[in-house]
Formats: sequence, structure tokens, C-alpha cells
Amino acid sequence: MTGQERSEEKSECVSLSPMREAVPAPPECERVCVCGTGDLGRSLGLRLLQAGYGVVFGSRRPHSSSSLIPHGAQVLGHAAAAQSAHLIFIAVQREHYDFLVPLANQLKGKVLVDLSNNLRKNQYPEANAEYLQSLVPGAEVVKGFNTLSAWSLQNGPSDANRQVYICGESVEAKQAVMAVATKLGFSALDRGFLSVARELEDFPLQLFPQWRLPLYIATGLSAAFFFYLLIRDIIYAYVTQGKDISFRIIVSLANKVCPIVSLIMLSLCYLPGVLASFLQLYRGTKYRRFPDWLDRWMLCRKQLGLLALGFAFLHVLYTLIIPIRYYGRFKATEHTVSVIRENRTTEFDTTTAWRGDSYLSLGILGFSLYVLLGITSLPSVSNVLSWREFSFIQSKLGHLTLLLCTAHTYLYGWNKFLSSSTYKWYTPLGYMLCLVLPSVVLLLKLLLITPCVDRTITRIRQGWERRADQRNPKNSQPLIP
Amino acid sequence: MTGQERSEEKSECVSLSPMREAVPAPPECERVCVCGTGDLGRSLGLRLLQAGYGVVFGSRRPHSSSSLIPHGAQVLGHAAAAQSAHLIFIAVQREHYDFLVPLANQLKGKVLVDLSNNLRKNQYPEANAEYLQSLVPGAEVVKGFNTLSAWSLQNGPSDANRQVYICGESVEAKQAVMAVATKLGFSALDRGFLSVARELEDFPLQLFPQWRLPLYIATGLSAAFFFYLLIRDIIYAYVTQGKDISFRIIVSLANKVCPIVSLIMLSLCYLPGVLASFLQLYRGTKYRRFPDWLDRWMLCRKQLGLLALGFAFLHVLYTLIIPIRYYGRFKATEHTVSVIRENRTTEFDTTTAWRGDSYLSLGILGFSLYVLLGITSLPSVSNVLSWREFSFIQSKLGHLTLLLCTAHTYLYGWNKFLSSSTYKWYTPLGYMLCLVLPSVVLLLKLLLITPCVDRTITRIRQGWERRADQRNPKNSQPLIP
Amino acid sequence: MTGQERSEEKSECVSLSPMREAVPAPPECERVCVCGTGDLGRSLGLRLLQAGYGVVFGSRRPHSSSSLIPHGAQVLGHAAAAQSAHLIFIAVQREHYDFLVPLANQLKGKVLVDLSNNLRKNQYPEANAEYLQSLVPGAEVVKGFNTLSAWSLQNGPSDANRQVYICGESVEAKQAVMAVATKLGFSALDRGFLSVARELEDFPLQLFPQWRLPLYIATGLSAAFFFYLLIRDIIYAYVTQGKDISFRIIVSLANKVCPIVSLIMLSLCYLPGVLASFLQLYRGTKYRRFPDWLDRWMLCRKQLGLLALGFAFLHVLYTLIIPIRYYGRFKATEHTVSVIRENRTTEFDTTTAWRGDSYLSLGILGFSLYVLLGITSLPSVSNVLSWREFSFIQSKLGHLTLLLCTAHTYLYGWNKFLSSSTYKWYTPLGYMLCLVLPSVVLLLKLLLITPCVDRTITRIRQGWERRADQRNPKNSQPLIP
Repeated sequence: MTGQERSEEKSECVSLSPMREAVPAPPECERVCVCGTGDLGRSLGLRLLQAGYGVVFGSRRPHSSSSLIPHGAQVLGHAAAAQSAHLIFIAVQREHYDFLVPLANQLKGKVLVDLSNNLRKNQYPEANAEYLQSLVPGAEVVKGFNTLSAWSLQNGPSDANRQVYICGESVEAKQAVMAVATKLGFSALDRGFLSVARELEDFPLQLFPQWRLPLYIATGLSAAFFFYLLIRDIIYAYVTQGKDISFRIIVSLANKVCPIVSLIMLSLCYLPGVLASFLQLYRGTKYRRFPDWLDRWMLCRKQLGLLALGFAFLHVLYTLIIPIRYYGRFKATEHTVSVIRENRTTEFDTTTAWRGDSYLSLGILGFSLYVLLGITSLPSVSNVLSWREFSFIQSKLGHLTLLLCTAHTYLYGWNKFLSSSTYKWYTPLGYMLCLVLPSVVLLLKLLLITPCVDRTITRIRQGWERRADQRNPKNSQPLIP
Repeated sequence: MTGQERSEEKSECVSLSPMREAVPAPPECERVCVCGTGDLGRSLGLRLLQAGYGVVFGSRRPHSSSSLIPHGAQVLGHAAAAQSAHLIFIAVQREHYDFLVPLANQLKGKVLVDLSNNLRKNQYPEANAEYLQSLVPGAEVVKGFNTLSAWSLQNGPSDANRQVYICGESVEAKQAVMAVATKLGFSALDRGFLSVARELEDFPLQLFPQWRLPLYIATGLSAAFFFYLLIRDIIYAYVTQGKDISFRIIVSLANKVCPIVSLIMLSLCYLPGVLASFLQLYRGTKYRRFPDWLDRWMLCRKQLGLLALGFAFLHVLYTLIIPIRYYGRFKATEHTVSVIRENRTTEFDTTTAWRGDSYLSLGILGFSLYVLLGITSLPSVSNVLSWREFSFIQSKLGHLTLLLCTAHTYLYGWNKFLSSSTYKWYTPLGYMLCLVLPSVVLLLKLLLITPCVDRTITRIRQGWERRADQRNPKNSQPLIP
Repeated sequence: MTGQERSEEKSECVSLSPMREAVPAPPECERVCVCGTGDLGRSLGLRLLQAGYGVVFGSRRPHSSSSLIPHGAQVLGHAAAAQSAHLIFIAVQREHYDFLVPLANQLKGKVLVDLSNNLRKNQYPEANAEYLQSLVPGAEVVKGFNTLSAWSLQNGPSDANRQVYICGESVEAKQAVMAVATKLGFSALDRGFLSVARELEDFPLQLFPQWRLPLYIATGLSAAFFFYLLIRDIIYAYVTQGKDISFRIIVSLANKVCPIVSLIMLSLCYLPGVLASFLQLYRGTKYRRFPDWLDRWMLCRKQLGLLALGFAFLHVLYTLIIPIRYYGRFKATEHTVSVIRENRTTEFDTTTAWRGDSYLSLGILGFSLYVLLGITSLPSVSNVLSWREFSFIQSKLGHLTLLLCTAHTYLYGWNKFLSSSTYKWYTPLGYMLCLVLPSVVLLLKLLLITPCVDRTITRIRQGWERRADQRNPKNSQPLIP
């Protein structure tokens, strides 16, 4: 994928103005070469100029491209350009590396930085950088900067894309590249030898790796409950009373699936933490790694929580439009009409009012806390929180949210548990199923915060070890296992 | 505008505590001078002290101001202070530069950094820095740091305001200032000679330049549709039936204008991308600049999208309060009453239910995606996305959002297209007009993602050139035009 | 609290992968020692390796812990490790410092960096760093890095936690530590002598210090108005008519308290700014500190505003569910039924419609602006705003929001002011009380923006001084008091 396309994708933000700025390079400055005058090459060159480097562009057609390049740099043929500098950035796509073969000799001992990316993973047998090395065996190839877009090069590094990764065989070459990176305002991270180049080239191609598992779970749950409720509500009604209430699929059913999935996801988000604590309790130490599945689970808690919030958001919208729906309005009218026609008296039932209102209130409070949790998980917000504040919000408020939402669901159910009519085809209601997990999580958490258990956990987290203690009493050293 | 006011404006965030911290300066440190002991001067001085510089303040009344300055610095008269250092920051407003004239001789060869800003653009014939240079011809004037507020100087640089711009005639002077900037934790960017000082001085005065065009469009569209609907609905009713339904202006009309403008703005946000692709298809290359109007349009896509989101948000709120409105409640009652009085039977119409519910569902889903797009365009969020993730969200999800919202609007219209009664005074309904643009965008996008077209586009974006190909076949080199 | 727990808390975000990366340390690199192989120690070590340092871990059981430490480092016994480097990080909890006593001699003259934190404030008589110094009098103890979590060390510094604070007696030692900090990508800030160590150790333990006051105010107001309305509405009804409408506590009452508190908090957020301006007007200068209470108030304006937004959010949700409530539906039916039974004719009242709709519209617009203000106060958003943009939003739009919300409340009240029936037990309605403060703020603001006053304020903010002027006319120098 070329720099052009990148900057196009992001050009909501890219300011092209620096492109036209005259940046007088100091006379005695160090010279670097950039092969390739595409967007990525040009942006890199501009950035280098601004950092005070002398920049020579290598191009196949120096004359035609001289108009494109930033003011202050010069363009030569590839051979001449490569000649002129020790450090050479290759801003050309892999398909066109062959132009380097004839230059192999004069590139001997020089540092070639491979910036290239691919369109998809495993597009080629070996990594581009390794291929480059094979073409120019004499040169010191360093893979790096490929995670940067023309956009971030032009606008300068911002918080998240300040980190650049490099790898290569020669330590000296890597340090030379790292020095440039630092001068450009990036913090370079040495990831090892050229063999990890493939990994680096896959970075920009990854699509929400951390979100995959949570998304699968969400999809699975939604599908499962959708069909469960489809059978229980729509099909059941059709089979037993021959009524066609298929229209309810769109809103009513969706409004049952969303809250159910949301609540389950939320409890899935707090379950691993509870499990981890119990594991530590059982092992009596914190100095043993958690099993991998638990580690992986812990790492996607944030994503689980945010997806849960998404479903909660849908639930809220679906609920709020109820009175606008034709169905809702129809029901209301029908009810009133029946009251009149059958000449019934309308009696206000305080219990129902109490129940309904507190059920709604709990939902509102739960959702508000939910939103608060979502906001604090924004990078810029969680960054300004001390870890104690962060843990307070994510743990204390998080479990409170779970508690409120669970109570909200219980109140919704009220005493339906008892009436047999709810168990159509001997199946429980959807929200009954979704109550199991949160209730378990809350119970376990309740156990954990009982003084005695809590004390033990705290001691373990401070490094106290049960078994160790038995061996020798002085041994409770937290950070020195 | 003075530092005082700046820190006031932002003092939600400013912590004044460092002001009182004792910061022992190392003995052998470099000395710089700060003329002016206002907020900006004091904050800069404090920051310099913290970075390990020795700081001498220049003041008109050294004694009275000695109480104000940060611990660790010293205050002298201007002359003495200027004497004591090679690098001198001028934290004084332009109106008071005259105090430098008598010092002209002893300032010869020294570096003067002009930090000043103005209250409004073009307040003075020439830039402050140029004026300063004219007052002290012998000194090396460098413009810089003026984009920083006393606030950001005190709290240290954060992601966005880490970048500082400088300009000046002397490369040495600029490099000296850049060195200081780097040591203070800022990354300085050389913007050229003193002639661009005016531009730098205008930076802090700009008020949402990127938002201006989108805001004009939004205002224009809103006004146009407001009057269109005013005539079609309210005035028409008054003229033909003499009914005064002016009260509908406030909510009903607003709730028609908002969704219309929102949908149009959203399609305006995706139109330029589509046009750009077709332009590339037509030209058969990506190596020619887009016309300026297209470039400018592309650059404000984000703003267009966010404004569209704002209108959608209003639309949602206006819709959700319908059942609370007196008008809504009145209509409901009237309907029921008429049913009773005319002894009609209420018949449930499944089609209407289907249509209404799916119309609402589409709206809800569309809006949720809308919000998601908005969240991912927050700087801190878009920073942590790889460009592939960003493009996936902004392009794929973006067009999906447009599709959902358009379908939502079509369903709302349903078959009103056919009945002639809808064409009051031969004018179409508002939402019919607003459907034109999105439909076009979606159709064009559909064309673009058809395999054959898509393949060509992808090749072009990889650098393949049609005409070039005709000249010579080997010529398809993406980044080497 | 140990690094282990920290990284657990935040492990939503922590990527453990680097832990397994091989990072070949350059041969000739500087060596540092890290005592303690807990999470914090290991993460610090890894970061040091990545920055090109040679790292030697000190451990009680070198063999057992050699498996844990990052590839590229070596583990020795504490004595040997301490021997091998001049700079030694103590990543051990205070309880276990005693292991250093025997090493006191060989630590003479070396730099010991104390990273430790406590579980709660004032856990020990003196600061950990001071305790460490007392154990190893010969060494140069520097407190620092303790605000970092294992998490932020692994993921590299991000915007907010880039700042690290250090303190200590020896300037040389501090500069050595600062150099390391800079190389790790942090910006170190010298806070003075070892005596401030306690303060640094309290940083990570603080829990929303800026939020405390606003939260107290919010809680106080909520409680006060809750009981006021409880008596006025529920108890009054019970006493006078014996009706039990206690169910209204949950939603109706909450929906009265929320908007009231929200409006008051919002005006409390803009009151200090107005007061400050009047104070400057009265004093005729900006060069005198504001009284402390005003300073403190100014500093928590952001928190006041965000809490107000929270209450407004609850108010919106509580309002939107009204038609879903059993009570709401009951009322609607009852109304219609009565219309039929008493054979009344339903007459549409345009005035009521006008009033109701504009009341709702104002609320919607006010809330939308409210949300906009909230979004712009996100760190990542406010960072990209120039101070002029920031002040425009927070001041202009802020006061507009206040105006809209106040008008919204006035319209809600309409002419209830006049009817005596509203003054149950001679007490005014809740929303009347809550209107006092915003009205005052708006009036004062109105005064401030009258041309003549505005001109004076602007001149004062540019540094003009009234009294000074009387002394000598040339004296209006803003930044040189």
C-alpha cells in the first residue's frame, strides 16, 4: 500500500502546507538519501529537512520529479544519489527493488532503510527487507519506519504513533537509524534481527487484533439468543395460536437480544479479574504466571466492556422509541378503548408504579455509570488518571455498574419466575438465562471483599507467599522472588 | 493578548503549584535572560529553571517584581539582565518594545526571541518580530514560542502543543533557540526566514479555520430547507385552509430540517473521496495533483462528518420527545376519542408495523454507527489506530452508515412518492430532495467496488499508469514518477 | 502497592509481548543495576535494555529468577549486582530495604533511585526515600519514577505519564537520573531536595483531589433539594390529602433534583470567572493575586461543569422515559377516559403548544451545547485547540449554554409564579430556587460585556493599571509590573 493511499485515507487531518514551506538547510548538516519521490518519500524527505538534514532524492527521472520534491532538497539519478550519502532510505515498493541490483557495488557498507509495506499478509515468500538484503548483500539493511504514514511524517509524531520499530543484523547500522528517528522526534525500539522484519511488515496490516475475540463472542451470543427468542416468541405464537407477530422481530426482539448480550458481556469483562484473584488465593502466591487463556482473556477486558456498552446503548435507544412505535400507540389506544367499552374503572396500582419506576431508575443509573466507564477508557482520559484512580473507576465503579444492571434485570423479571405460563415449551425466558453469569460474578466478588479473604489477597499482592512462609518466615519478599 | 489572560482562559487545567516550588539550579549551568515578569515570562522562566538553565529576569522595577518571580531566578534591571546572557527572551508586549532602543548597542550580536502575540490579525503594519529587528538592527531576532500559553509552559508540553514554530534570518541563532526548545521538551520546527513571522503570529489568533467552510454549508442548508418547509407546511396550511399551525415551527419543522441537513452533510463528507477515485480512473494515474477545490473539500471531510453527527443528534432528541409534547399527547387522545365516538373498530395493520419498526431500527443502527465514527475521530482514538484500521472505519463503516441512513429516509417516505397530495404547490417533500445526493454517492460507490473497476483503482493507487504504460511497458513504477 | 497489581489493574491495555522480545544490547553500552525482579523491576529493566543500557538485575535468588528476567539482561546476587554499576534502581518494597544494610560500604558514593510507593498516605513516619538514605548514609539517594506503573514502563511513555518527578540532595546524582529518564523517553522534573520525597510518594495515592470539592457540593445540593422536595411534594400530599404518592420519589423526584442541581452547578462553574473580572475591575489591575478561595474555585471549574453535565444527562434520560412509565401511561388513559365519560370536547390550545415546544427545544439545544462543552474538555480535544478556540468554546458557548438552560427552566415555570397554589406551606417551587444563581451570573456577565465595561477589562488584561496611571501616565506596561 503506497504512501499516497495512506495520506488519502487520513487526509481528513493531513495539512499539506509544510510541503510548500521553504526550509533552509544549515550548510554543515549531515546528508541522507531518499530513493523514491512518492508521497512517503517526499514526506520523509521534508521531515528530514526540517530536522536539519541535507536530503538528496534518488529518482528514475530526476528532471520530471524535481518539481514535486520539497524545497531545499535536490534530486539526482539513483546512482548519484546513493553515492552522496551513507544512510539511504528506500521509499520504493518491493516490486521495483530491482533498480538497486546494478548499484550493489557502490552500496557496499552503506545503510539501507527498508520502509516498504505490503497489501496483505504473506504476499511474498520472504519479508521485503530480507529480499532487499538478498539483492544487495554488501549493504546493511535495516527494516523500520514502515508503521508510519506519509500523514504522520508530515504532521510530526503524535502521542500514539511516536513509537517506531526497527530491526536488522548490524548494531551500528541500527544505532545510526535510531539516531535519525530520535532527531525526527520518534522513539525507535530495536526489535532484534532482520528475521523479525516480517512481523514489523505485518503491523500496519493488522485489523483490530485485540477486538477479534470479543467480536466473535458478541456475534455468537447475539445469534444464539436471537434464534432462541425467535422460536420462543414468534414461532411459538404462530404454532400455538396461529398469530403472525413476525413484525416484532425488528424492534421487540432486538430490544431483548441487546440487553441480554450486553449484560453477559459486562459480566464476562469482570469474571477474569475475579478468577485471577481466586487463582492467587488458591496458589497462595502471585509469582506464578496465569494460564494463557486467562492472560488472553484479561487483555481483552476493555474490548468486552466497550462492546457491552455498545449493546446497552442500542437497548436504550430501542426502549426510548417504544411509545413512538405504531405498535405502542396501537396498544395504548386499544387499552383505553377496551376500558371504555367494557366500562371498567381504572385503578392505580402503587406497587406496579414502585416496581416499574425503580426498574427504570436502576437502568438509567446503570447506563450512566456504563457511559462513565466508557469515557474513562478513552486513551487520553485514562492517561491522565493515576493508577489508583484508574483502578477505582474500572474496578469499584465497574462492579457497581454490573450490580445495578443485574438488579435492573431482576426487577424487570419481578415475579414472572413463579408463573408457569412463562415457561413456554418448558424453556425459561431469555433474561433469566442472562442473569446466571452476572449473579455468579457478583457472588464471587462479594466473597472476595469479605474482610478475611480481602486481607489475604492484599498480603499476597504485596508479595507474601504461603508456601514460602512455611519454608522460612523471613521470606515474604514481594519483588524479589 | 497577555499570558495572564491565556492562563485564565485555560485555568481549568493550570496547576499553579509549581510556581511555588523551589528548584535549585545546578551551579555550572547556562544562563538565559527573560525580559518581562508577566505570567508568560514567569512561566517561561520557571520552565527554564526546571530544565536546568540559570535564569535572569529583566524588569523595569526589579525590587517590586522580585517577589513574583520563581524561586531560583534573579531579577535585574533590563540593561543588567540583557548584559548577563547571550540568549534573551522578550516576554513583553509590542507596545513596550521601545525600552530596548537604549540597549541597542549592548544587544549587538545577541539572540532576541520574540514571544509576542497580537489581539487581532493585521493589528500592525509589520510583524512584531520584524518591528523588533528594526528597533535593534544589531541583534539576531528569532520569532518563536508564541503559540505556547503560560498554561502549557507551566504544565509542560502535552501531545498537541509540543510543536513550536520558529523563524529568523540567522541559522546559528535559530539553532541556539531550537536547542533550548528541545531541552524544554518541545520539538521546534524551522519555518524559514523572518518574513514568515507574521504567519506565526497569526497562528494563535485563528478560530477554527478548518471548520469555517463546513459551518457555512451547514448554515446555508439549514436556512434554505427551513424556509422551504416553512412555506410548504405552515404557510401553505394557512393560505389554503386558514389554519394557524405556526407552533409546529419549533419542534416539527426543526425535526425535519435536522435530519435533512444531516444526511446531505454526511453524503458531502463521502462525495469527494468518490470523485477523487473517478478522477484517478479517468486520468489513469495518481501522480497528478487533484484540483484545489477537491483538495480543500477532502481536507474538511472530518468537519463535515462531525457537523452531520451533530444534526443527527438533534434529530434523535427531537424525535424522542414527540410523545412528551402536548401536541403528541393531544393527537393520541383525539384519536382514541374519535375511535370511541364514531364507534370504529381498531384494526392492527401488520404492514404498517413492519414498515414503521424497520424504519426506526434503521435509524437507530445508523445513528449508533454515526456515533462510533464520531468517537474514532477523537484525536486520542484515531492516533492508536493503524492506518488500515482507520481507513476501515472511516471508509467501510462510513459508507455503511450513509447506506443505513438513506434507507431509513426512504422507508420514512414509503409510498408517499406516488400520492399527488404530497406535492403541495407542485413542490416535492423536503426529504425527497435530501435523498438525491446520498443516492448518487451510494451509486457511484457501488460502481467503484465492482470487481473490474476496483482492480483498476487498486493498480493505479499502487502506481500503475495507463498512458505511461502505452509509452513503454516496463514503466509501472509507483513511487518513482 | 506493587507493580504486579498496577499492571493487573491496567492490563486492559498492557501488551506483554515486548517481555519476550530479544533485544541485543550494544557492546559498549553503559551499565545500570536494578535491584528486584518483580514486575516493576522487570519492566524497568526491559525499558532500559531497549534504550540501549546494559542491565544487571540484583536478586535474592539469582538462579530461580533468571527465567523471569527479560532476554539480554543478567541476574546476580544483590552484592555482585550493586558492585557492577554506579546507578542502582531499588525496585523493592520498603519493608525489605534491610537487605541493603550489609551492602552499605560498597554502595558508598553510588546513586540509589528509590522507586517505591506505599499502600496509603502516612503509612510510615518518614518517606521511603529518607528511610533508605538513613539505611545507606554513604549513597546518594534520589526519589523518582514512582509515579510510573509497570504498565507505562512496558508500553513506553504516553502523553500524560511522560512527566516523572525526582528529588534528592545531590545535584550530580539527580542529573544522572534525569539523563536516564530522558533516554527512556520521559521528561524528568526536579522537585527539589529529599524532603519533598513524601510529597512524590503521595502522588500515586491521590484519588481525584480536584474532584473532591465539586463532588461535595453536588452531594450537598442533591441531598438538600431531595429533602426539600420530599417534604413539599410527597409528605405535603400525605399530610393534607392523605394520599400516598411515595412511588414518585424514584423517578419524578429524581427528575426534579437532577435538573436543579445541574443548573446550579453550571452557574457555579461560570460564577468565579465573572467574580474575577469584577475584582480586577474594582482593583483596577491584574497584577494582584486573587484570594485563595477564588483561585481554588477557578481551578475546579472544569470538574463543576462536568458534574453538571452528568446531572443534565440523568435529567434527559429521566425525562425521555416518562411516556414509558406505568404512571405516565395510566394518566394518559385516565385523561382520555374522563374526556369520553364527561363527554368533554378536546380543544387544542396553541399557546400551550407554543410554550411546551419551545420549552423542550431550549432544553434540547442547551443539552447539545452542554455535550459539546463536555467533548471539548477531553484532554486530547482541548490539546489541539488554540487558546483562542478554547476560550471561545468554554467562555462564549459556555455562557450561551447557561442562558439556554436558564430560559428552558423559566419557560417550564411559565406563570406558576403567580398562582398562590404553588406556594405549598409558603415554600417556593424547587426550580424557582435554582433559578436565582444562574440569573445572577447571567446579569453580571451581561454587565461585563457592555461596551464600556468590556473596554476597561480588556485594557486591564493588557496590563493597564488604574492607580499606576494616576502616578505616571507612561506606566501602562502589561508584562513589566
